[in-house]
Amino acid sequence: MSRVGVAVLGATGAVGQRFVERLQDHPWFELRCLVGDGSAGRTYGEAVTWLPATPLKPSVAARRIVRIDDLDPRDVSVVFSALPSGKAGPIESLLAARGFAVFTNARDHRLDGDVPLLIPEVNPEHLALVARQRGPGLIVANGNCSAIILTLGLAPLHRGFGVADVHVATLQGLSGAGYPGVSALDIVDNVVPFIGGEEEKLEVEPRKTLGVLRDGAIVPDGLRVQATCTRVAVREGHLVTVHARLSRQATLDEVLAAWEAFRPSAEVAALPSAPARPIELRPEADRPQPRRDRDAGDGMAVSVGRVRLDEDGRGLRFVVLGHNTIRGAAGQSVLNAEFALARGLLPTPRTRVASAASSAGVPVALA
Amino acid sequence: MSRVGVAVLGATGAVGQRFVERLQDHPWFELRCLVGDGSAGRTYGEAVTWLPATPLKPSVAARRIVRIDDLDPRDVSVVFSALPSGKAGPIESLLAARGFAVFTNARDHRLDGDVPLLIPEVNPEHLALVARQRGPGLIVANGNCSAIILTLGLAPLHRGFGVADVHVATLQGLSGAGYPGVSALDIVDNVVPFIGGEEEKLEVEPRKTLGVLRDGAIVPDGLRVQATCTRVAVREGHLVTVHARLSRQATLDEVLAAWEAFRPSAEVAALPSAPARPIELRPEADRPQPRRDRDAGDGMAVSVGRVRLDEDGRGLRFVVLGHNTIRGAAGQSVLNAEFALARGLLPTPRTRVASAASSAGVPVALA
Amino acid sequence: MSRVGVAVLGATGAVGQRFVERLQDHPWFELRCLVGDGSAGRTYGEAVTWLPATPLKPSVAARRIVRIDDLDPRDVSVVFSALPSGKAGPIESLLAARGFAVFTNARDHRLDGDVPLLIPEVNPEHLALVARQRGPGLIVANGNCSAIILTLGLAPLHRGFGVADVHVATLQGLSGAGYPGVSALDIVDNVVPFIGGEEEKLEVEPRKTLGVLRDGAIVPDGLRVQATCTRVAVREGHLVTVHARLSRQATLDEVLAAWEAFRPSAEVAALPSAPARPIELRPEADRPQPRRDRDAGDGMAVSVGRVRLDEDGRGLRFVVLGHNTIRGAAGQSVLNAEFALARGLLPTPRTRVASAASSAGVPVALA
Amino acid sequence: MSRVGVAVLGATGAVGQRFVERLQDHPWFELRCLVGDGSAGRTYGEAVTWLPATPLKPSVAARRIVRIDDLDPRDVSVVFSALPSGKAGPIESLLAARGFAVFTNARDHRLDGDVPLLIPEVNPEHLALVARQRGPGLIVANGNCSAIILTLGLAPLHRGFGVADVHVATLQGLSGAGYPGVSALDIVDNVVPFIGGEEEKLEVEPRKTLGVLRDGAIVPDGLRVQATCTRVAVREGHLVTVHARLSRQATLDEVLAAWEAFRPSAEVAALPSAPARPIELRPEADRPQPRRDRDAGDGMAVSVGRVRLDEDGRGLRFVVLGHNTIRGAAGQSVLNAEFALARGLLPTPRTRVASAASSAGVPVALA
Repeated sequence: MSRVGVAVLGATGAVGQRFVERLQDHPWFELRCLVGDGSAGRTYGEAVTWLPATPLKPSVAARRIVRIDDLDPRDVSVVFSALPSGKAGPIESLLAARGFAVFTNARDHRLDGDVPLLIPEVNPEHLALVARQRGPGLIVANGNCSAIILTLGLAPLHRGFGVADVHVATLQGLSGAGYPGVSALDIVDNVVPFIGGEEEKLEVEPRKTLGVLRDGAIVPDGLRVQATCTRVAVREGHLVTVHARLSRQATLDEVLAAWEAFRPSAEVAALPSAPARPIELRPEADRPQPRRDRDAGDGMAVSVGRVRLDEDGRGLRFVVLGHNTIRGAAGQSVLNAEFALARGLLPTPRTRVASAASSAGVPVALA
Repeated sequence: MSRVGVAVLGATGAVGQRFVERLQDHPWFELRCLVGDGSAGRTYGEAVTWLPATPLKPSVAARRIVRIDDLDPRDVSVVFSALPSGKAGPIESLLAARGFAVFTNARDHRLDGDVPLLIPEVNPEHLALVARQRGPGLIVANGNCSAIILTLGLAPLHRGFGVADVHVATLQGLSGAGYPGVSALDIVDNVVPFIGGEEEKLEVEPRKTLGVLRDGAIVPDGLRVQATCTRVAVREGHLVTVHARLSRQATLDEVLAAWEAFRPSAEVAALPSAPARPIELRPEADRPQPRRDRDAGDGMAVSVGRVRLDEDGRGLRFVVLGHNTIRGAAGQSVLNAEFALARGLLPTPRTRVASAASSAGVPVALA
Repeated sequence: MSRVGVAVLGATGAVGQRFVERLQDHPWFELRCLVGDGSAGRTYGEAVTWLPATPLKPSVAARRIVRIDDLDPRDVSVVFSALPSGKAGPIESLLAARGFAVFTNARDHRLDGDVPLLIPEVNPEHLALVARQRGPGLIVANGNCSAIILTLGLAPLHRGFGVADVHVATLQGLSGAGYPGVSALDIVDNVVPFIGGEEEKLEVEPRKTLGVLRDGAIVPDGLRVQATCTRVAVREGHLVTVHARLSRQATLDEVLAAWEAFRPSAEVAALPSAPARPIELRPEADRPQPRRDRDAGDGMAVSVGRVRLDEDGRGLRFVVLGHNTIRGAAGQSVLNAEFALARGLLPTPRTRVASAASSAGVPVALA
Repeated sequence: MSRVGVAVLGATGAVGQRFVERLQDHPWFELRCLVGDGSAGRTYGEAVTWLPATPLKPSVAARRIVRIDDLDPRDVSVVFSALPSGKAGPIESLLAARGFAVFTNARDHRLDGDVPLLIPEVNPEHLALVARQRGPGLIVANGNCSAIILTLGLAPLHRGFGVADVHVATLQGLSGAGYPGVSALDIVDNVVPFIGGEEEKLEVEPRKTLGVLRDGAIVPDGLRVQATCTRVAVREGHLVTVHARLSRQATLDEVLAAWEAFRPSAEVAALPSAPARPIELRPEADRPQPRRDRDAGDGMAVSVGRVRLDEDGRGLRFVVLGHNTIRGAAGQSVLNAEFALARGLLPTPRTRVASAASSAGVPVALA
């Protein structure tokens, strides 16, 4: 009857809270440890300023925050990391060396040659990279929030027509800067047209996720992304305006059909966090909008709209929007862990009872 | 001692108010008529929900709004039009036929072959187009708010290096949609990624303003603009992210120097509304910002920042920001009228006393 | 298996949308008619700018809006009115005369001697007033949004200790002004300290709801409310600061216990829209807050916090917050209709099958 | 020709910036020192995130921030303190002991028996309290931001009719919480109905400012204030709803006349920061509003509106609004210093030339 024991690092931050929200009632994972060095000893309810609309479960609120050294591999086999980039890298390496399966939202390992930058609907085959990681544990990364949203929006075009050049501007929600993050005095009646490091990530990460796995290594895609990133007074949701150049000519109907037809494989569709449609097309003239569309697919679907194709059949403009702390961070990471679990890559929990787990949909290969 | 009598059409709207604000104490123009068909008979103070920070002068607030038919050419020779596009065109034509000099913010006549789309710092020679207009009056148009801001930002690059291709995304302030305009329920915690007709204007208008006057007609520039326009929860100010392709290679220093050196001609610099520097370079990493920079040059300067040049010396990214109802609308229109007055193109007021006016800086040619 | 057929008047407005949201999947009511004179003939999906987070059901979106004259008593027996006050009164009277049961959010009939101003948890006995209404139909009103929220918050104090004097200030959400309602230019970075008619309603309506039914008429309570109402940049939720004077001394524990113990009767608790706890106490220092607490009890619970009792045991200060378009409008109206249905006061639908309806919890008295 | 040398403590915070803004071009004071322990050594321009609309002067931006120990009494005789309460008290005492005249916005000394809580238009005679301070320097405090705004609004009523009881609710701007202060995630689409310590200050401070100086000590007024304080998504400006009980009956005309007639004494009116009218009456139904009225009198006037008098002639309701970091903090403190200078209480600068100073309006008594 048991689920896989999991921990969240950096659980009080904006992304950490999303991890907690999505794990506090998860069918396959059991949230056993909340880790936070600064707040260790306090209960989670005391330490956190809870931001999601979903209420925090009292049993989780009452749980005491522990230090990272308190993580016990007999209790926890999967660690979700919402640590700040820079600090995250060495800790995650250490945890992997100690046998934990680490799913991280931090930047540090994203470009490592043996770490997949995973979106199961886009590059499931990249998960095989972890075989190259030495040691008992493993590390799987998800991309930057804007990069995930852009990459998902581009994936059907990339598959169907090729994408050569992309100019994007982002309008990013506040939670992307963490909590407390952006001062209200800086953003009420204002826009801040700069987010440190964001443009660089948008230019590099989609190339890796859309790349080809060849001889056990990723050959990055040749896609060229140029980005300007801005922060707007929106609580959650990143909106990305995209001007793309297709590698081969298409009609508008073909482009729309490519998005429309984009569905997860049966294997991915069976994962608890996978949305039925990773991409939702919005036909309205003025959509997608952050407040109205960020929760599509329980925050795991991106929404595409405002599609305009040039007469030459190659210049394509559209807007793609996604929930930055769900599909763009914690939700993506949980989906990645579900996928790894389904593929039999996770250390199995000591006390797990195979029959119960498989009745919840976990493939028998895991038993 | 007299100034030129002027009227404002559509005086209660967001742009109309800016006209009133900038004309209520103008050294060359005297605001004699507020025109509004819906509110005729009421005082301006009763009819308007005043938006600018500058207080409305009591003498203007007490003035009674009149109908368009009440305009008397003996009293008023210049008409500023803040009428809605669609409705504006025929009325403005009629007024010009009756001998008024019309300076319009409306879209209707912008692309007419004999109407200059004027920014005195950029295309002063286009003013000569009015000679082709038949009839006793004249019409001079200013561009769309975003188009003016973009065109000003591009002008020094266009002059210095040529600009071939431009991808822009706009983040536009609320006042651009007029008053009451955008419902608060649509924009608090939200972005609306669509503004009707805006992208088309951005693609066409800069080509005319940057075009060449040849044989009495404008040859539009070959510049290709592709735009995605969005509305954000900012009161005033349009921020435009620009990814431009220069026609010839440049260094970052050359690019910065081109903006830095961009100044009005002596003739333009002498106009009351002309800013000393039409373009202000912001060196900070996170500027320009609408709230902090929209009032630069009393709302008549645009601010440029976040300048990034590709290694190839041709791909250039930057952000340009301007005040949409001042430089992007009413302020531009008033500057255009000042320029026409300085060039001697305006009907002179009946009772004007040359010596007094010229002591206020009006060129003697006008007398 | 049939449910009671219902219609919504004014279905495209902010409150009308809430009616649709709460009726599109209701166990007892079936939404059969959307009425809107201005938009008749169009589908609801075309005519509405949908504001709630809950998605609009495609079957409802596809429904064509009809005129009020098209209402057919064979199809619809209950009419929910989200008409604007002023216009609503005569229409509602006419509908009641034609045999419809009208549940109205409009002001017009609220103070009629034979119309209950109903909150089933507070004054269920007032429903008996409808017996005094002549004619085949009936009218039941809910109070003004702020008045309902205040009255619910006061009810346990009123019962337990008496309340003599109340000073309130309200901070009201945008949806209270309807859609499009408040211009974003008026409320971004601002507060508007005036809402027409609101203070008067707050002073009068709670006296009626808290009044005593004697000899078939309401004797209003002697409670004195003084109010100042303001509009703030919050999408939904009205926050009310309350300084009350209790009629008899209490301790802080007694006051908290009175709120804590406030529960619906078993009869009311069985209604589909009734929250388990109509009042939720927030122990945190800085709650309730609109964004965090407006959805308590699915929008039907009000939240009370910041409780401070003077040393004299009579001066009491607190904050009460509720969802203005749910408990403060449409949700209250639907709850009222459920209560009337449970009490057997509604015209039964022609094709209703008693066994099925009662299996869904409708009392047999209805059969 | 010299002005009095002044320093600002805590110069990079929200209130500190207002001090700098109002002192960078002051006719009587010369801003010679910016003090900040955390940022000492950096230039002010590097250390500050400048918030006011007024541009920071380049000469001030280039000034290097010093430590408090670097303050030199030969250079600076007046110190303005924007230090955080708690930390401020001992430092200010020490500075006074070293001979500096300290004008402080911090809470620590406000209730000291020998420290005036000064508003020159209201209690100029309280300045005499400083004679009781031992030592070469002096300390003068201004009240809490909301308390100043409320006290100014009440002063004419207090003088004319007496005020017994006051219920207030505040809607306070973001800058009152300092910078970075309130997280945007906490306030977009929200209200926070709690500000630590604020309600207590509102209850105590007006009693002192409105108190009587008798035998060298303040006898606090008997006024009873009860307050509930909230934070709203407004950049600057505190709006206070007031329900007051007058001690003696008045007519509405008498009340309005009392506010209308409230003017500074000739002595105060001559101070550079004194507004001609400390109270501006707004006749519009929906004013005062933070964005529209906070800058009245250059931020030094409070605006009163929404005046409603009960039939009994004693219950009075109104709204008063003021700029919290100008009249409610730095501007008040600078006005207090000007008043002390005019009264000859400030240590004179070493190099001051009497004739020049007096030509700038400083009373000859200072020479």
